[in-house]
Amino acid sequence: MQRVTNCILINNEQILLIKKPRRGWYAIPGGKMEQNETIKEAAIREFREETALHVKEPKLAGAFTFSIFSEKKIKEEWMMFTFISENYHGQLTDYCKEGDLEWVPLNQIHTLPMAEGDLKIFQHILTSKEVLYGSFSYTADDELLDYRLDWDKDI
Amino acid sequence: MQRVTNCILINNEQILLIKKPRRGWYAIPGGKMEQNETIKEAAIREFREETALHVKEPKLAGAFTFSIFSEKKIKEEWMMFTFISENYHGQLTDYCKEGDLEWVPLNQIHTLPMAEGDLKIFQHILTSKEVLYGSFSYTADDELLDYRLDWDKDI
Repeated sequence: MQRVTNCILINNEQILLIKKPRRGWYAIPGGKMEQNETIKEAAIREFREETALHVKEPKLAGAFTFSIFSEKKIKEEWMMFTFISENYHGQLTDYCKEGDLEWVPLNQIHTLPMAEGDLKIFQHILTSKEVLYGSFSYTADDELLDYRLDWDKDI
Repeated sequence: MQRVTNCILINNEQILLIKKPRRGWYAIPGGKMEQNETIKEAAIREFREETALHVKEPKLAGAFTFSIFSEKKIKEEWMMFTFISENYHGQLTDYCKEGDLEWVPLNQIHTLPMAEGDLKIFQHILTSKEVLYGSFSYTADDELLDYRLDWDKDI
């Protein structure tokens, strides 16, 4: 069971994304949790490792279950915790081993090549301050088979 | 990697807890996530299975990493997602196979026997509306070795 955390950093109406060499898809900076970390500690550490920036007070924006199907059975399952922050300090690195870092205007996110589920996550997270819960089913080949999204309403 | 979800249901200044036969410790109703579930779906399902009550619009109150140590090494790790709700429908079951269900007044929670970490979680969750992030290290014998807690601040 992998656990992944990442963080959407918003600054000047732009989001910092990584353009990954594989397929040229854009992704939110982040990576695998380490043992004993809280999800927030992991999100801050991973963001710093990939961008050299220290995000300040990231807040949880979404918690997602990913099921990877093969021959109609779940072969792998992982969790992703997506944070959001509008503050950081530090200087953006020139080199990120995961891909090219790029500030993308908020209104262009939907035009970028990325995993289909990520686009749906962005649609909700950028328009709501509530935590989004989701479950995504993918093939091993990154094809979205099915998904459910649910978000907090006021009680 | 186990993933556990539970829900603190508050009604009339009381919380619904389970007094478990083992040690007589009190616990928040909940249990293991199933494949493909979102953490919220799992919290609602587990609560219903144990209490027959359907919690309405539970909100995530805490996300916790648990590390179980043996001979100074992490032998097991799991995640716990704790929700909170103040609304439900349905009729409380007479029988819960996990233990005795009991409405406990909020101001008596701190007097109950329970895992040391759970008490710390209650202290924070009942006094803050922000998501709490934590990491707890336990022995296999439920002795709390160490913990860190962190909660969202306004950015």
